[in-house]
Amino acid sequence: MRNLRFTLAYDGTNYSGWQRQANAIAIQEVVERVLTKICKEPITVAGSGRTDAGVHARGQVVSFRTTNRMPAERLSLALNSLLPYDIVARDSREVPQEFHARYSAQGKLYRYLIYNAKLPSPFQRNYTWHIPYALDIAAMNKAASLYVGTHDFSAFQASGGAPVDPVREIGSSYWQKNGDVWEYNVKGNGFLYHMVRNMVGTMIEVGTHKRPIESITELLQSGRRSDAGITAPAQGLYLEEVYY
Amino acid sequence: MRNLRFTLAYDGTNYSGWQRQANAIAIQEVVERVLTKICKEPITVAGSGRTDAGVHARGQVVSFRTTNRMPAERLSLALNSLLPYDIVARDSREVPQEFHARYSAQGKLYRYLIYNAKLPSPFQRNYTWHIPYALDIAAMNKAASLYVGTHDFSAFQASGGAPVDPVREIGSSYWQKNGDVWEYNVKGNGFLYHMVRNMVGTMIEVGTHKRPIESITELLQSGRRSDAGITAPAQGLYLEEVYY
Repeated sequence: MRNLRFTLAYDGTNYSGWQRQANAIAIQEVVERVLTKICKEPITVAGSGRTDAGVHARGQVVSFRTTNRMPAERLSLALNSLLPYDIVARDSREVPQEFHARYSAQGKLYRYLIYNAKLPSPFQRNYTWHIPYALDIAAMNKAASLYVGTHDFSAFQASGGAPVDPVREIGSSYWQKNGDVWEYNVKGNGFLYHMVRNMVGTMIEVGTHKRPIESITELLQSGRRSDAGITAPAQGLYLEEVYY
Repeated sequence: MRNLRFTLAYDGTNYSGWQRQANAIAIQEVVERVLTKICKEPITVAGSGRTDAGVHARGQVVSFRTTNRMPAERLSLALNSLLPYDIVARDSREVPQEFHARYSAQGKLYRYLIYNAKLPSPFQRNYTWHIPYALDIAAMNKAASLYVGTHDFSAFQASGGAPVDPVREIGSSYWQKNGDVWEYNVKGNGFLYHMVRNMVGTMIEVGTHKRPIESITELLQSGRRSDAGITAPAQGLYLEEVYY
């Protein structure tokens, strides 16, 4: 069996997320259906990680095994000729047998976009979180820097999930402004379920001075989810890149 | 009867355009339904002009008459509380009796967006025309400048439309580049049906050197539609502003 890897960009608006959930089709399903057609045998893929309903990707990495002998570099062309317009394959290649999109991942870069303007924009509604009030970007950047390092992120984990090791290492974490769009970039060796969205929701409360900057340090120490901020909505989140 | 005016931004992706056509709901219909609820009487609106299915607006101007006495400035808030997320009212105010969104218009600014990158983007598909090959922006800007002035635009009119005076005055016409997105801005005293999209389709052929720059001048002289370029797709077009 050959081991192939490709990278996907997708608009998550019309999907239940990477994995199947109620009421909508999953991106993984669509991709497997197309690959089964291309490879002429049943294909199951592994993604680098799940993305929730409405969450987007510019660099989701996927791997799978097949006996099909097509040139690996042609796979992304074949995918793009059959995938719907909101899922795009960016590249494809053959990888060593031991590579696995999920288990081989060493880290990830996520981006979160805020649309900061008085009125909502019909063009931004599925791609950003609209925040109509003033934000203190200096305070938010101080808060963001407090996430850097190795910490117990229990306070930023979705409540009610399966117990997992809550310690993660964040390499970089900062905000930058592009006109009305505020972009948060966070790179880490791994992320708990809803972790980025909970980190963002908490920083927004710092940006509106509802919460002191030092509260981030306290949350990393206490691990109390109930003391953290709200979960930022799914449509502002992008899986940008996966590192191996 | 009071005469009220408001400005709309909308994402045209899910509509049949400003006016009703087969198979999809029209933006005008949605707006009239909401206004009828707000004003508690049947409302018919006038838009500054029609936009086709898939065409967007950031500055569509709308006027209507009502006996309702609510403060005119509150109208846009009332609209935004009832309109779907892909239609946003930007402002509202009372205007003199003689004002009419369509008949009082003195000019319009349209924008057309090209996404110039090898691969399509899932995030740009409904908002730009994807062109995967190299474009000569200098040649396109020379072509764009030839539209400026008062000309017979018959060659850029949709074929088969009702006969109208084809002479229009273009005040400014230029391309600028923002990363992978190329933005064409054209301001004129009026536009024929499909005129901007036909102007863009023709300029793209100049940008790929399939057509000489001077062909624009020839088309403005000959008026032959069959000699002009293709009609650029709807989803790249934005009605930016209407001048009164």
